[in-house]
Amino acid sequence: LRNGNSEVIYCPGKSLDQITAIFQVLAEKSQNVIATRASRKAYIKIKERIPEAEYFETARIIALWRDKVQTEGIVGVVSAGTADMRVAEEASVTAELMGSRVQRIYDVGVAGIHRLLSNKQLLDSCRVLIVVAGMEGALASVVGGLVSKPIVAVPTDIGYGANFKGVAPLLSMLNSCASGIGVVNINNGFGAGILAHRINLIGEMHENTLS
Amino acid sequence: LRNGNSEVIYCPGKSLDQITAIFQVLAEKSQNVIATRASRKAYIKIKERIPEAEYFETARIIALWRDKVQTEGIVGVVSAGTADMRVAEEASVTAELMGSRVQRIYDVGVAGIHRLLSNKQLLDSCRVLIVVAGMEGALASVVGGLVSKPIVAVPTDIGYGANFKGVAPLLSMLNSCASGIGVVNINNGFGAGILAHRINLIGEMHENTLS
Amino acid sequence: LRNGNSEVIYCPGKSLDQITAIFQVLAEKSQNVIATRASRKAYIKIKERIPEAEYFETARIIALWRDKVQTEGIVGVVSAGTADMRVAEEASVTAELMGSRVQRIYDVGVAGIHRLLSNKQLLDSCRVLIVVAGMEGALASVVGGLVSKPIVAVPTDIGYGANFKGVAPLLSMLNSCASGIGVVNINNGFGAGILAHRINLIGEMHENTLS
Amino acid sequence: LRNGNSEVIYCPGKSLDQITAIFQVLAEKSQNVIATRASRKAYIKIKERIPEAEYFETARIIALWRDKVQTEGIVGVVSAGTADMRVAEEASVTAELMGSRVQRIYDVGVAGIHRLLSNKQLLDSCRVLIVVAGMEGALASVVGGLVSKPIVAVPTDIGYGANFKGVAPLLSMLNSCASGIGVVNINNGFGAGILAHRINLIGEMHENTLS
Amino acid sequence: LRNGNSEVIYCPGKSLDQITAIFQVLAEKSQNVIATRASRKAYIKIKERIPEAEYFETARIIALWRDKVQTEGIVGVVSAGTADMRVAEEASVTAELMGSRVQRIYDVGVAGIHRLLSNKQLLDSCRVLIVVAGMEGALASVVGGLVSKPIVAVPTDIGYGANFKGVAPLLSMLNSCASGIGVVNINNGFGAGILAHRINLIGEMHENTLS
Amino acid sequence: LRNGNSEVIYCPGKSLDQITAIFQVLAEKSQNVIATRASRKAYIKIKERIPEAEYFETARIIALWRDKVQTEGIVGVVSAGTADMRVAEEASVTAELMGSRVQRIYDVGVAGIHRLLSNKQLLDSCRVLIVVAGMEGALASVVGGLVSKPIVAVPTDIGYGANFKGVAPLLSMLNSCASGIGVVNINNGFGAGILAHRINLIGEMHENTLS
Amino acid sequence: LRNGNSEVIYCPGKSLDQITAIFQVLAEKSQNVIATRASRKAYIKIKERIPEAEYFETARIIALWRDKVQTEGIVGVVSAGTADMRVAEEASVTAELMGSRVQRIYDVGVAGIHRLLSNKQLLDSCRVLIVVAGMEGALASVVGGLVSKPIVAVPTDIGYGANFKGVAPLLSMLNSCASGIGVVNINNGFGAGILAHRINLIGEMHENTLS
Amino acid sequence: LRNGNSEVIYCPGKSLDQITAIFQVLAEKSQNVIATRASRKAYIKIKERIPEAEYFETARIIALWRDKVQTEGIVGVVSAGTADMRVAEEASVTAELMGSRVQRIYDVGVAGIHRLLSNKQLLDSCRVLIVVAGMEGALASVVGGLVSKPIVAVPTDIGYGANFKGVAPLLSMLNSCASGIGVVNINNGFGAGILAHRINLIGEMHENTLS
Ligand SMILES: Nc1ncnc2c1ncn2[C@@H]1O[C@H](COP(=O)(O)O)[C@@H](O)[C@H]1O
Ligand SMILES: Nc1ncnc2c1ncn2[C@@H]1O[C@H](COP(=O)(O)O)[C@@H](O)[C@H]1O
Ligand SMILES: Nc1ncnc2c1ncn2[C@@H]1O[C@H](COP(=O)(O)O)[C@@H](O)[C@H]1O
Ligand SMILES: Nc1ncnc2c1ncn2[C@@H]1O[C@H](COP(=O)(O)O)[C@@H](O)[C@H]1O
Ligand SMILES: [Mg+2]
Ligand SMILES: [Mg+2]
Ligand SMILES: [Mg+2]
Ligand SMILES: [Mg+2]
Ligand SMILES: [Mg+2]
Ligand SMILES: [Mg+2]
Ligand SMILES: [Mg+2]
Ligand SMILES: [Mg+2]
Repeated sequence: LRNGNSEVIYCPGKSLDQITAIFQVLAEKSQNVIATRASRKAYIKIKERIPEAEYFETARIIALWRDKVQTEGIVGVVSAGTADMRVAEEASVTAELMGSRVQRIYDVGVAGIHRLLSNKQLLDSCRVLIVVAGMEGALASVVGGLVSKPIVAVPTDIGYGANFKGVAPLLSMLNSCASGIGVVNINNGFGAGILAHRINLIGEMHENTLS
Repeated sequence: LRNGNSEVIYCPGKSLDQITAIFQVLAEKSQNVIATRASRKAYIKIKERIPEAEYFETARIIALWRDKVQTEGIVGVVSAGTADMRVAEEASVTAELMGSRVQRIYDVGVAGIHRLLSNKQLLDSCRVLIVVAGMEGALASVVGGLVSKPIVAVPTDIGYGANFKGVAPLLSMLNSCASGIGVVNINNGFGAGILAHRINLIGEMHENTLS
Repeated sequence: LRNGNSEVIYCPGKSLDQITAIFQVLAEKSQNVIATRASRKAYIKIKERIPEAEYFETARIIALWRDKVQTEGIVGVVSAGTADMRVAEEASVTAELMGSRVQRIYDVGVAGIHRLLSNKQLLDSCRVLIVVAGMEGALASVVGGLVSKPIVAVPTDIGYGANFKGVAPLLSMLNSCASGIGVVNINNGFGAGILAHRINLIGEMHENTLS
Repeated sequence: LRNGNSEVIYCPGKSLDQITAIFQVLAEKSQNVIATRASRKAYIKIKERIPEAEYFETARIIALWRDKVQTEGIVGVVSAGTADMRVAEEASVTAELMGSRVQRIYDVGVAGIHRLLSNKQLLDSCRVLIVVAGMEGALASVVGGLVSKPIVAVPTDIGYGANFKGVAPLLSMLNSCASGIGVVNINNGFGAGILAHRINLIGEMHENTLS
Repeated sequence: LRNGNSEVIYCPGKSLDQITAIFQVLAEKSQNVIATRASRKAYIKIKERIPEAEYFETARIIALWRDKVQTEGIVGVVSAGTADMRVAEEASVTAELMGSRVQRIYDVGVAGIHRLLSNKQLLDSCRVLIVVAGMEGALASVVGGLVSKPIVAVPTDIGYGANFKGVAPLLSMLNSCASGIGVVNINNGFGAGILAHRINLIGEMHENTLS
Repeated sequence: LRNGNSEVIYCPGKSLDQITAIFQVLAEKSQNVIATRASRKAYIKIKERIPEAEYFETARIIALWRDKVQTEGIVGVVSAGTADMRVAEEASVTAELMGSRVQRIYDVGVAGIHRLLSNKQLLDSCRVLIVVAGMEGALASVVGGLVSKPIVAVPTDIGYGANFKGVAPLLSMLNSCASGIGVVNINNGFGAGILAHRINLIGEMHENTLS
Repeated sequence: LRNGNSEVIYCPGKSLDQITAIFQVLAEKSQNVIATRASRKAYIKIKERIPEAEYFETARIIALWRDKVQTEGIVGVVSAGTADMRVAEEASVTAELMGSRVQRIYDVGVAGIHRLLSNKQLLDSCRVLIVVAGMEGALASVVGGLVSKPIVAVPTDIGYGANFKGVAPLLSMLNSCASGIGVVNINNGFGAGILAHRINLIGEMHENTLS
Repeated sequence: LRNGNSEVIYCPGKSLDQITAIFQVLAEKSQNVIATRASRKAYIKIKERIPEAEYFETARIIALWRDKVQTEGIVGVVSAGTADMRVAEEASVTAELMGSRVQRIYDVGVAGIHRLLSNKQLLDSCRVLIVVAGMEGALASVVGGLVSKPIVAVPTDIGYGANFKGVAPLLSMLNSCASGIGVVNINNGFGAGILAHRINLIGEMHENTLS
């Protein structure tokens, strides 16, 4: 992030050796290091050299987290189906590693809308919401109609045919009839986690200790 | 429709004179005639020659309807915003002229989802539902999650920017996480009315008198 | 489907273990369970634990079907080429498992139009038609011109180059010059089967036993 | 055409004065001159100076035709709806002015397929066929399935919504399940007329007098 | 917004009479009313009946604002060129009417990057930033690289050719190499204003009086 | 082709067993059989049962050709680069198997335009030309500017990035400034061969023996 | 350009008053001022206040040019058809106003390739070439095959249907089989003029006096 | 390049044997030979026969370079992230092999803009700049705002989701608010190297020895 004291590695397109080497270098000059879209193999290799490194399987994140803090405010992460879980976890774990308290509200897609409605109170207890959805991405609009919090919407590439690898929910979220929704790139759980954390920080007393 | 005893004229790209002439010819050989996407001007011209012709302003339909029938079963027409009304009315009036009883359930967009939920009983009383929505078209998914009737979804071109003149709700509806949704072309209220009417007819005793 | 007494699993993106586990859970709480886009491997694994499970090879569907019923009315499934068979079978088997009587009318593409025309009577005997076609998808329009039944059109991704993995027949079907056609997502035989079954149900006397 | 003794002016984007001036220049150095996409206004202006000039209203073509010939072989021009007539006429008139005998077979769209089938003999009497269709462009495939002549397909921009101004029939025609179809640009009746004429010429005895 | 005590009218596609009527109705049941994308003509008509109504020319917003408040925290609105001003003002005025203190930082496009860099301190004084840019939308990335605040990016349709009416900056912003950017629809200054205001509110002591 | 005495199998998506079985069936009821996009493996398997079957390696065509004829007229097949050879050979071999005399004029791309110009006489000796080109597809326009024969243009998917798998040359060919060009689908050498052969046949005396 | 002593105004979307006002301000602080895409009306208004201002009709450029210089080296501007002239002139006049000697080589499209070939010597006399073409944009590849100078390619929006307002030649130019071609936005004659001038300057002795 | 004394082979789609054979043939008739997008395996095979051949790993280029020269002027190659390195090296090595002196300025993406700004002097020392960037491609605009040299921009396919394999930075670069940028195809480092070298040559005294 270059502005804080955490450093992030995006793994795709890098060899195991490259990932490990970059991780080690960053681990020396920075308190916290995260690697996203990381395989378990990469984790095993890094762990050999940096034993405190942790692996978040579903989120596919490797983290070295020496400087832990936690916000008062809550980032809610809402997701539609089980297939969206990897992206939802990437968002949740990223926000947590950054220092945000996270409330997961998963598997509340609009095909069974009552499950979502019965979570209204939980939604209201959050300072900011991340909504993760593939297929047609309607969840973002429905959540946006229920609460007036800032919403970060993440389209996923779950779907086929005229889904066009996430384009359908991306367009859906950009055109939402509910206001107050900012959209990030398809599958970009990481970016959503960062943005939601930054929004969450605004409500903290001792903002500096976290930024 | 060429298979029944009604004839349909699609007005765009035809001059007032052409529309009037075709209407007259069809009025001689067929009991019922409809002209869609028709202006009031076209109506006035036709009325001079065929005084029984009626005009449905919002639906932009001119109709000569000499052979009236009405089904037992109900076609429900659900729409999101006031801007979708023209397309919703094209669907409603088309289905009515074909002989279906129609229940309008308008302005129940997902941004204010409780209005939709409070209409659950009305939705359940219909045999088939037409859902008309622009913007991100999430309404189709939400209705599809509430009922297990056949649904005909009509995307409209209401929106701007990344809406791409109705492409966003079109993709949304094609990718709906709810099952049982058949989609027609953007703004094609007429086609939705025909299809819903044909579905509705299946439940009637004396199908032949209507087809 | 969450509204009936059948549960459905969409297999892509799930491991064999996950599919088996979910299948077992659903088999306990629901009479009927279907898994779509399922491999033979997944079937073998499920069969070890649930011996009544059946496999429909071409349709790629695993089914546990304890609550069998059958409609009076017929869902016709019309398909263009042999390459479209997998999607056509997904539609046919889905409708059958839901309880619909199904009439298959396969390999009647428009390149040899007389084969289709000679099936006119069979088409007329159906309550609702599913039309499955790839390439340019012209079959939907031709069938739509021959009968005035409700039609559910399914574009497939059969083709290459400017076919764009099913976009060509999708657009073709959405723009059909024949009325009364509702379109589902590319390759979505399952969705077409559900929708056609729901339409078919409307004509049954004892609708409740099936819904 | 720069290779024969006819010259062609494409009018859009040119002022009346420019069109008239170019027409006059070409009329001096060439036997035959055509202006396509021409308004009646342009015609009136040209006629003042070149009285033999003719105007083909629907085709929107102005022609000076001093060197008339006619082929034995016939170019058939098949079209779907009345809205496609302008493009069909552009093709027919172009082929006629080039010297081809033309057989018009209009308004035989697939929504009423029996009209097309009853023209089978006429189709068979042609050496080459031009098929003009908008909406979903299915006509090209159906004609291609009926005859084994060379076919030139012209998509038109008739339609709306997911038609994308002719892209739907363009893709349809490029992906036709029938073989032997060459496609020209959307609305390019002129190009189709030229190509069909060149194909027709191959069958003439005294090719040179026409080329 | 349906959740707060302000009501919003989106004017395009509504007649002057409709806008005026809706405005009056809302003015009776709500403290504050805004109409976006409103012409001066609409304003004059509304002012006749509701003299307190104000007009924001560049923002094209008509407002009735009886319940005024102002946040401590600042929403910074950064824009690239003069052509983006209308959208930037829609964002600024919306945020102001909602109750946010707004700092405008206009005409700081990346073609003259030193103007932007010399505003670093001003950027740092804001709680949240809105970045408005057309053409290639690079401004969002550059601002995102300078500060670690939440950023709401608004692509505009300023440009031509391969800009595709705002698609180029939209894609640019979604793919930004800087983290912490949420994107709204092309030209959606209103949505950006709402979202930024909601983020800003999180830092206020007496949140309730404003929400 | 269903209209002649040859039958064609399109191999992709069919198993070796399926291809072999279909080939055998067709070999019994038809004089000639072709399988396109066929692997050498498929050929070896077919040859075991039908020893007269031949394999055209580059064209990827397996053929059983018992009814050989040859036209007087020549189909010229012009191609741009070596990478386009597979498609060019599919076209050439298809036309040859249908009975056309074929003249190959390969590797005459516009980057070295003099090679093409020096083949002008050869081009003029053909009755119809097939032009095969990937990248930007400019070759079709240049050939179209040199001769006034009917041209069948085949875009190939050779290229990368903004080539979009053949879309760039497809659009190029559809928009050619030269007239008289009919375009087939991307990589569709087979379709081009059929169309060119049908055009070529028009000039033969004893057309019937070949059709 | 902010780096030199010329200032440029892009007129679309600005009122006559705005254009005039900006022009005057820039005329006071800079030696040279250009306004592109300017109407004659705007010129007349500016001329009233700044009599030295000149208007280039076809290029649609208003210029105040007090600091005139001229390079030794030549920028060649090659264009395909008369319809591309406005963009070609925008490029030529821009380069000239910047100080480059310009050689116009217009109306040498590939449909009549000999006109282009006969200009080979002229092409060779230039230091850098701008190639302006619409339709399928093949001209850039042909010129690129003839010379090994740096080429700046400008696609224009001349064409219709599958031309997609200049997308066809844009893709064509980006995929050219000839090397050494840099592409600018559709219709961006101005940008091409600037880039070619900057390339031309590299060959001048006294570069500083011009930059 | 066909105009100089170097020959180039594009490897994708060719077998190792084909690449080796072509390389050998060209090595006999030309001083210099390059193969791009080449694997180490291909290099090993070629080296067996032509021991002077060199391999540039990151650039994936095999070169036989017997005729070495070097320009006075410098081609600067600026790149955004480590993932863009392969394309940047393809550009750098190509320009070097052609004879240009190259200055690499890598890893100066806009997310950390101060690294770029601190290289201002180095940028100014170059005659022409190549800018290589993926993601949103903003780097081209920022560099274009800092210097007034000719810029060759190369979009890369680094990114995911709405990046569309390089389309996002391609559009970004074509729409840059900075002037003087010519764009090549996605990942086309080779083409950028050729173009920049040709521009660079213009400033050399003894141009002929290099062209
Ligand atoms: N509003 C509409 N939207 C879509 N299709 C329509 C509409 N109105 C009429 N049609 C169809 O257009 C055909 C009539 O077209 P035409 O012969 O051009 O008037 C009818 O057979 C209908 O199927
Ligand atoms: N309706 C048309 N559609 C496509 N191309 C045309 C048409 N009419 C003329 N052309 C072509 O446009 C060229 C004339 O263009 P121009 O010199 O601009 O008048 C002719 O050589 C024809 O090939
Ligand atoms: N400029 C705007 N851009 C996007 N959405 C808007 C804009 N102005 C109003 N809206 C939304 O449109 C809704 C009102 O639409 P309507 O009922 O059609 O006037 C409001 O609830 C807002 O969320
Ligand atoms: N290479 C090819 N490209 C396009 N169409 C082909 C090709 N080969 C065969 N066909 C067409 O595909 C049909 C055979 O398809 P199938 O029945 O699936 O084997 C034939 O009737 C041909 O029209
Ligand atoms: Mg809300
Ligand atoms: Mg449902
Ligand atoms: Mg029908
Ligand atoms: Mg045929
Ligand atoms: Mg930042
Ligand atoms: Mg020609
Ligand atoms: Mg060259
Ligand atoms: Mg610059």
